[in-house]
Amino acid sequence: MKQLQQATVAIVGLGLMGGSLAAALRARGSVRRLVGIARRAETVAEATARGFIDEGTCDPIAGASGADVVIFGTPVQTTLALLTALGPYFRSGTIVSDMGSTKVAVLDAMSRLPSEIHPFGGHPMCGKEIAGLSAADADLFLDKVYVLTPVERTSSDALQTMQALAEAIGARSLVLDPARHDRLVAAISHLPYILATCLVAAAEDMATEDPLVWELAASGFRDTSRLAVSDTTMMRDILLTNEENVLYLIDLFGRRLTEMSADLAQRDTERLTHLMSSVRQRREGLFR
Amino acid sequence: MKQLQQATVAIVGLGLMGGSLAAALRARGSVRRLVGIARRAETVAEATARGFIDEGTCDPIAGASGADVVIFGTPVQTTLALLTALGPYFRSGTIVSDMGSTKVAVLDAMSRLPSEIHPFGGHPMCGKEIAGLSAADADLFLDKVYVLTPVERTSSDALQTMQALAEAIGARSLVLDPARHDRLVAAISHLPYILATCLVAAAEDMATEDPLVWELAASGFRDTSRLAVSDTTMMRDILLTNEENVLYLIDLFGRRLTEMSADLAQRDTERLTHLMSSVRQRREGLFR
Repeated sequence: MKQLQQATVAIVGLGLMGGSLAAALRARGSVRRLVGIARRAETVAEATARGFIDEGTCDPIAGASGADVVIFGTPVQTTLALLTALGPYFRSGTIVSDMGSTKVAVLDAMSRLPSEIHPFGGHPMCGKEIAGLSAADADLFLDKVYVLTPVERTSSDALQTMQALAEAIGARSLVLDPARHDRLVAAISHLPYILATCLVAAAEDMATEDPLVWELAASGFRDTSRLAVSDTTMMRDILLTNEENVLYLIDLFGRRLTEMSADLAQRDTERLTHLMSSVRQRREGLFR
Repeated sequence: MKQLQQATVAIVGLGLMGGSLAAALRARGSVRRLVGIARRAETVAEATARGFIDEGTCDPIAGASGADVVIFGTPVQTTLALLTALGPYFRSGTIVSDMGSTKVAVLDAMSRLPSEIHPFGGHPMCGKEIAGLSAADADLFLDKVYVLTPVERTSSDALQTMQALAEAIGARSLVLDPARHDRLVAAISHLPYILATCLVAAAEDMATEDPLVWELAASGFRDTSRLAVSDTTMMRDILLTNEENVLYLIDLFGRRLTEMSADLAQRDTERLTHLMSSVRQRREGLFR
């Protein structure tokens, strides 16, 4: 594989993640040529107009078949379908990667690619509540963790290229086993999304009793429910490809909620205070 | 009762809320004289040094007995204890209010004050994740809802004064029945706190399996768990004085979580997508 600087990189899906990746690589002059692939011609036109890509197309075969590196920024189930469809068309030696939030299902599909293709899972740990190319941001990845999940057949050349790519956009690469990644993100990303969604649903139930509930919602509700505006297709695909881990985390959470409810019902001040203080201390140590 | 401009206002408790109220009234020259009461002499000294108060003391009787309006910015259980202790010392005609997040328990205690005192519950719908006077901010209440909860004996004079006070600091006053207030804030404030706390607790459980969980936590986890750093004493008092409503809301939430888990376990894409889309739409309509 050539150096990243000499490579043609194709990005499939120009939403928030794919668009930001294009913008970041372009802003830093990290690759030779950037090809953008989107379903809608308007998206290709916008990415071209904003200078994120050298060339754009709505035809994934045309766009991906000439690239040295192909990166999917599509929802996970779209990525799975496209991997199958595009498999025969990738050039020999192409590195194929993605940016999705579940890795086992994607790496399974990647492992079925022809043997001269180098599969490599990726997941930059960042996001925004607004989806779409309009929210794309060349600085989205700055100082963020970029998880890289190789499989057995992945070459060390491909690892070097992907690490160079992560560093080129200002991220810190972290190599992880796909299964381990999926379990961890169920805790820190998929569970929070589910809590945010069920919080809004519960407030909606409350609003049928008393519509004033929305009038009183302030910054605490705003932040706790923020993830509920995540892109629905993206999140549905994530949940359905990480179902077992997500259900495991919901169970861990449910036990904690049941315990805290019981402590409150029994007015067990000591246990309540102990939980609240230790959690507060832990949370204060994060995000400095 | 005199006009607010001619009144001496005593604020008991100079934390984030009490300190911000003092700062806001002072910055806008809304009252004649501001007396600050805190447990620690250092807090009184800091409030004086920052120009938030005209006079400060650690003695609540001395501080409150000469005031036209006394407002408690203390945790709810401290407010309940101080109302009993200070009852005999308030001047006849004094308006006594508070800033706590539960109103029924506080108004119960206020109703037992001598008959020449005017009780009036208050709850500005704003906050910050940092507690204490150091985080006090004269603009904390700008454009926020300030809930006012009168009781039967509350005079219309007292209502006018409290509305003038809310408007003086840039807030919008909203008169509500105490029981209705407590039910509503259980949904939009106390439940979110509990979810944030149990989320961090569940991630902690996950971390005993794999400590890397904290490494991957990004902005989604940060926002969803933000309320877990709320002041422990304040939140404990709130939960213990709003137990029934909080348990009711946990139950509403739990039903939604159980439903969503079942939909996921059964891979019922249609039901999942319907819930996620309708919640997303609702949440997008808030906080514009």
